[in-house]
Amino acid sequence: MARMVQKFGGTSVGSVERIQNVANRVAQTVAAGNQVIVVVSAMGHTTDELIDLARQITPEPQAREMDMLLTTGEQISIALLAMALQQKGISAYSFTGWQAGIVTEPVHSKARIMDIDPRRLIDTVASGSVAIVAGFQGWTIDREITTLGRGGSDTTAVALAAAVQADVCEIYTDVDGVYSTDPRIVPFARKIQEISYDEMLELAHLGAAVLHPRAVEYAKQYHVPLMVRSSFSQVEGTYVKEVAQMEKGLVVRGIAYDTNVAKVGLVGVPNRVENLKIVFQSLAKESINVDIIVQSIVQNDVGDISFTITKDDRKRTMEILEQLKDQIGAQAYVFEEDLAKVSIVGAGMISNPGVAADMFQALIDHNIQIKMVSTSEIKVSCVIESGLAKQAMQILHTAFALDAVQQHEEAAVV
Amino acid sequence: MARMVQKFGGTSVGSVERIQNVANRVAQTVAAGNQVIVVVSAMGHTTDELIDLARQITPEPQAREMDMLLTTGEQISIALLAMALQQKGISAYSFTGWQAGIVTEPVHSKARIMDIDPRRLIDTVASGSVAIVAGFQGWTIDREITTLGRGGSDTTAVALAAAVQADVCEIYTDVDGVYSTDPRIVPFARKIQEISYDEMLELAHLGAAVLHPRAVEYAKQYHVPLMVRSSFSQVEGTYVKEVAQMEKGLVVRGIAYDTNVAKVGLVGVPNRVENLKIVFQSLAKESINVDIIVQSIVQNDVGDISFTITKDDRKRTMEILEQLKDQIGAQAYVFEEDLAKVSIVGAGMISNPGVAADMFQALIDHNIQIKMVSTSEIKVSCVIESGLAKQAMQILHTAFALDAVQQHEEAAVV
Repeated sequence: MARMVQKFGGTSVGSVERIQNVANRVAQTVAAGNQVIVVVSAMGHTTDELIDLARQITPEPQAREMDMLLTTGEQISIALLAMALQQKGISAYSFTGWQAGIVTEPVHSKARIMDIDPRRLIDTVASGSVAIVAGFQGWTIDREITTLGRGGSDTTAVALAAAVQADVCEIYTDVDGVYSTDPRIVPFARKIQEISYDEMLELAHLGAAVLHPRAVEYAKQYHVPLMVRSSFSQVEGTYVKEVAQMEKGLVVRGIAYDTNVAKVGLVGVPNRVENLKIVFQSLAKESINVDIIVQSIVQNDVGDISFTITKDDRKRTMEILEQLKDQIGAQAYVFEEDLAKVSIVGAGMISNPGVAADMFQALIDHNIQIKMVSTSEIKVSCVIESGLAKQAMQILHTAFALDAVQQHEEAAVV
Repeated sequence: MARMVQKFGGTSVGSVERIQNVANRVAQTVAAGNQVIVVVSAMGHTTDELIDLARQITPEPQAREMDMLLTTGEQISIALLAMALQQKGISAYSFTGWQAGIVTEPVHSKARIMDIDPRRLIDTVASGSVAIVAGFQGWTIDREITTLGRGGSDTTAVALAAAVQADVCEIYTDVDGVYSTDPRIVPFARKIQEISYDEMLELAHLGAAVLHPRAVEYAKQYHVPLMVRSSFSQVEGTYVKEVAQMEKGLVVRGIAYDTNVAKVGLVGVPNRVENLKIVFQSLAKESINVDIIVQSIVQNDVGDISFTITKDDRKRTMEILEQLKDQIGAQAYVFEEDLAKVSIVGAGMISNPGVAADMFQALIDHNIQIKMVSTSEIKVSCVIESGLAKQAMQILHTAFALDAVQQHEEAAVV
């Protein structure tokens, strides 16, 4: 017997039929002798409909009232799922975020979980009932209703799994696992069987939107094993855990990409120690995330600083640089868009020093110019022209032996 | 400056436009220097839509999960109304039933309010903000979400008005007040300016569905002055309070009717002291409400017992009588439907002993047969053939000088 948390997203509970489908899943897990806590999101388009209602009233609704409004979406889902289980003769109780004991910091629309008192949930499952919890929400110590922001239901599921010491946290979604890269771009992308938290974090941050990075971080911090799988099939999904067994001969686990990249260049910046600090503190103060930073070699006490931001931040970044330009003594600043960041990710890189060089070689062999590079212990990212991103991903997917077996089989047939 | 509770029903908040209309109302009250607590119901058809979702899943949803589901309706309303006020530059905070400190007994779908801790609401209005509370809902001391059942939002409003010692509790609805009788039946029904709690209770119980009886009882118990008025016009409504000033020459305040009446007759019942007790205890145990009871004069130690029930209870009542018939030694039982109860209500009756006789005379003058009679200090009810109810109401409305002035004016023109 295991204690499990199962999380179903908005698509999985998007209609009465799908809620009944989820109830069948949960019923199977219960029948197998497990204790089950279910976390659900709002039904399909409920959240969008509620947001639309709010926008009809005011262009800028206050975050507190948006939380009040949006948390009803999950509350509807939990009640309906409880009814669907009861209809099948299974004892079930629904709980809002606050009833489930989820205490967050006093911030609306993107609160972090501060504490969980899981006694009610543990009592419920220990007595043989299913506990169904509204994802994405909690309350503060002052009893204000809060939401966790994007990816909130994943985070709820992982945090509850940690709090009740669950054996596994299953994340049900509309794909059947984590893929080596985006199958829409690389047709021979393959499903990953196991992946480590760190690798998953790099893939999640880099655009593979199956699991929210916050949820992965939480899982890593509290050692919660995750299983990402499809709510529409019985296929085994992807297991996310501490250390993933490497598939034979594979150094790279997956390839991520991000087309929301703009490059900023500050030209002719005097080599003063405080200049870097001034630039990046000013950007941070405005919550502008800077990703890759490259400082050119300084000659005659003057150098260039380049960094990447998301395209959405271009306008605000320009305003800030306009103000800073004279203060730091830069000659000019330039923007470059139509860029993409392509990354290879794999824990095996740590012990395989030549991986970055292999990546560069593969790209250069196909005349793809690398504009910027950034590396971590388990990742190498290259910024290239966005028009070449698709080609680059396919090249790298093949170069690092990630192509699914079918490709070779089909190739053999051809 | 006054402290006010304003309650808006489902029709009044049935669309975004109507919510904005409510916001305008509240804004006017705030601008006049008042502290305002607003209680709202779910938007128009929201509750029906949620019930429909539940029914698609199970024919008999559990009450706990129905409460979980339905309370989202008011939560949506409060958030949207808060946004609408904020959009007008008015500080406003929404509160669920539990956030507003409403503690109920641990019963689902029809809980009674046990206690209210109004500190949060008082702090909110004292600091110059509007407090918006979800009607119809509360929580138990075990933090279970409960609903108050039918008329629940009226009850919430009155209970909060009592708890915060409001100067008045305004009930906004889609009619502009309490009428002397149903205007659809008696075209010259007139709006009542003032009415006492007791009179309102009799009218509410007897079918004038403007205010729920529970709310009136609560208002009476805690001396909360009520104002029933229209959310679609600025017309003054009906003031419901301890003692209402009688309009000159009027003994009867209003005329109520109820067509959901069935008469049960137990024929040839031996005159044993326990027989009455057995019959009515058995009915009470099955929650069958008995209204008028008439015991015929006993001859040769055998008599008849007649009483009225609602038509919905006919089947269950028959089953009970079938079981009891032999036990009490009754010869037979009979049912009579197609009946209506027409009642005159007025606190002035207490000091006018001839009122009941005037009522009988008016009906008899028009050949309307009276089948049963029941009286209280402020009410006389007659059970008659349902086909004659409309005529009877018009006769009584004129006989007790309740017809609106227009009738006489128009009559004069003719």
